[in-house]
Amino acid sequence: MHLSDGGELVSDCFALKGNICFSSGKEKLNTFPDATVICEDGLCKGVYPELPDSYKGIPIIDYKDCLILPGMVDLHIHAPQFTFRSIGMDCELMEWLKKYTFPEEALYADTGYAERAYGLFADSMKHSATTRAVIFGTIHRDSTLILMDLMERSGLISYVGKVNMDRAAPSELREESPDASAFDTFGFVNAAEKRGYKRTKPILTPRFIPSCSDALLNELSEVRRAYDLPVQSHLSENPGEVELVKKLVPDAAFYGDGYDRYGLFGRDAKTVMAHCVYSTDEEVERIRKNGVWVAHCPNSNMNLSSGIAPIRRYLNCGIRVGLGSDVAAGQSESIFRAITDAIQVSKLYWRYIDNEAEPLSFAESFYLATEGGGSFFGKVGSFREGYEFDAVVVDDSSFPHPRPLSLAERLERAVYLGTDQSGLQAKYVCGERVYEK
Amino acid sequence: MHLSDGGELVSDCFALKGNICFSSGKEKLNTFPDATVICEDGLCKGVYPELPDSYKGIPIIDYKDCLILPGMVDLHIHAPQFTFRSIGMDCELMEWLKKYTFPEEALYADTGYAERAYGLFADSMKHSATTRAVIFGTIHRDSTLILMDLMERSGLISYVGKVNMDRAAPSELREESPDASAFDTFGFVNAAEKRGYKRTKPILTPRFIPSCSDALLNELSEVRRAYDLPVQSHLSENPGEVELVKKLVPDAAFYGDGYDRYGLFGRDAKTVMAHCVYSTDEEVERIRKNGVWVAHCPNSNMNLSSGIAPIRRYLNCGIRVGLGSDVAAGQSESIFRAITDAIQVSKLYWRYIDNEAEPLSFAESFYLATEGGGSFFGKVGSFREGYEFDAVVVDDSSFPHPRPLSLAERLERAVYLGTDQSGLQAKYVCGERVYEK
Repeated sequence: MHLSDGGELVSDCFALKGNICFSSGKEKLNTFPDATVICEDGLCKGVYPELPDSYKGIPIIDYKDCLILPGMVDLHIHAPQFTFRSIGMDCELMEWLKKYTFPEEALYADTGYAERAYGLFADSMKHSATTRAVIFGTIHRDSTLILMDLMERSGLISYVGKVNMDRAAPSELREESPDASAFDTFGFVNAAEKRGYKRTKPILTPRFIPSCSDALLNELSEVRRAYDLPVQSHLSENPGEVELVKKLVPDAAFYGDGYDRYGLFGRDAKTVMAHCVYSTDEEVERIRKNGVWVAHCPNSNMNLSSGIAPIRRYLNCGIRVGLGSDVAAGQSESIFRAITDAIQVSKLYWRYIDNEAEPLSFAESFYLATEGGGSFFGKVGSFREGYEFDAVVVDDSSFPHPRPLSLAERLERAVYLGTDQSGLQAKYVCGERVYEK
Repeated sequence: MHLSDGGELVSDCFALKGNICFSSGKEKLNTFPDATVICEDGLCKGVYPELPDSYKGIPIIDYKDCLILPGMVDLHIHAPQFTFRSIGMDCELMEWLKKYTFPEEALYADTGYAERAYGLFADSMKHSATTRAVIFGTIHRDSTLILMDLMERSGLISYVGKVNMDRAAPSELREESPDASAFDTFGFVNAAEKRGYKRTKPILTPRFIPSCSDALLNELSEVRRAYDLPVQSHLSENPGEVELVKKLVPDAAFYGDGYDRYGLFGRDAKTVMAHCVYSTDEEVERIRKNGVWVAHCPNSNMNLSSGIAPIRRYLNCGIRVGLGSDVAAGQSESIFRAITDAIQVSKLYWRYIDNEAEPLSFAESFYLATEGGGSFFGKVGSFREGYEFDAVVVDDSSFPHPRPLSLAERLERAVYLGTDQSGLQAKYVCGERVYEK
């Protein structure tokens, strides 16, 4: 037993009862109707049809006919863009940045605005089925720390990055110099560490090659090493962007090499790269070899007319893949939505681009949203024994059916119908209940 | 003043007040914040910033900060498939029909099952933003009449069809002979007419060429003429289906010609054809010339790996296009969702298939969902003067924003975020309020 954040006495060992679904590996979707999943000291101790004798007497929270799933993992989301999600879906990446994104991000120079806007973001994340997220802030140190405070209180475990940009942005979003940007990043990481967050960690966040000079990336490589920071950025999202990068770093072997030559692309730096729609063979091989995670953001890639990432190929060659909502190029923070988008675009990819790239199955896409992205956080995203205990409870009873459905059918329906928006009943992160309806 | 269905005394002239959005033509999206739209005798009498003097004293229903939009039009939905929407999204058309659709549709031989299952469907349509729909039933006459009864009570205006099939289906869904099928269709139409529905009309519904022999289509052409029935069917949805049709009707000039030679493809028969993903040049020209409506069903076309219909091309050459949810190949009955799906797939079409086919704008896709499909019902789908008064009231206040948004931005956000599911406040059809939260 221990005291929760709210001063409530909570047990370190308990069970949830309900209809349990989880992946074990990318092809195996397990469904256990009316079963029990046990949590002890924040870790999953397995799923059982009946509570084993050795656990008799532990508290059981009975969610009756609800679905109990591992928490969703969002590998790529921009907190400051949450305010304009689902607005302005009429241009491609570079124009969209200029027209919508940069003007909005500039507002976060004002910590009062950040407080209000990030408050809405964090509240929405709290009420989502997401338990882990990798988050972009803006270039503004103080506002990004406000975001971290709010995320800490939301109950999610997250990485949050102060963005670095020293070129190709309006002046109010261009940091003065590589030095100044690195200095501010040191300050950000220091301040974050001093706040003693339990759930929230800083991540190095060079926006993308067009916004980061080589001198800046070079400075950031030192910041990274000094704190052993993980890294997040964007990669090969859009043809226009890819062409621009070729001009900006003609000496890089390919887009990702522009990061790799500064130690910001996997290897000993835990790294997640969003998109990878137009990665060349050489880039794909480097992603694989360096152990870089790919954040697949299918909704964003449709909205900005970017294209479709070849996820089947990535899975076949053993690349680590998770899903990202990529708000606000992605229209919503729902990872349920990302699961179905990933399946749908993979079908169009198969139909029009490569008829050897078999579409993603529901089981595979569910895996990407849980274990796939979860691996960026450790043993996360499954109810396999020893995994960190992240769970969401979803009520799908508002969709009645004239005859019984299998649990696998109910899960698929709940995900396609976006039940995460209306039906979330409870959320647990690392064994702590962080939300209950 | 007159008595409503519920015996309530209602005014034949009233106004709604709120944030009014509607199309006038495919490129013009009008937005009037805090304005008034007037309804008289079921028809729209225009939108005004302030109530004109000539209407002073009429009842005004003030929806305050809500959005007021024309009702959505669903040109293609299968009522019996509603039960398995969002389930079994793992195959292409012909396999999906065998595995999921036909076994489910066979259950509607039992009118008890139909009563329960269609009850769920009609209830869901009532609570949707859809005011008009073109609906497939099954081959079963009595069950389809039950569906009509329920649709009549839902408040929507709809066309409902008893399906015809005499081949390429399991025996329990294969009608005995072309004669028997036609006879049953006569019976269906007669019974429907006798019930004196105010809002619900029969429509001739040969499922698609693979399920309908030439002899059957020939019989149906007589039924059609006898009652001047409109027609709904499927056309050029999937490559496998298109190949099959070539084998089945080798003497038809193209798929659509298989209907046209029996008078079931526009001209004097008002006709809507779902999909048209793989229509040949010749077919496209016939669609245009015969004035056939295309029901564009982007969500279905993704889920069944069918492809992307060339809607830009259809609009450019003056073909009439509306949107269809195509439940259950489409995962939900939401036409808001269809609006955004149509935009998204048009972006991928532009990117990968034809970079001269400019993606659909939000205004264009909103038009398709309202006026575009509405034209199948007459002057429907706009608040232009003289249009039938279908309106939905949507509350988007659950999505707060840190600074003011324009009404156009609010509309786009409400549609992308699927506010039709949670935020529907009221629905009017032909000037009658058929739903209020």
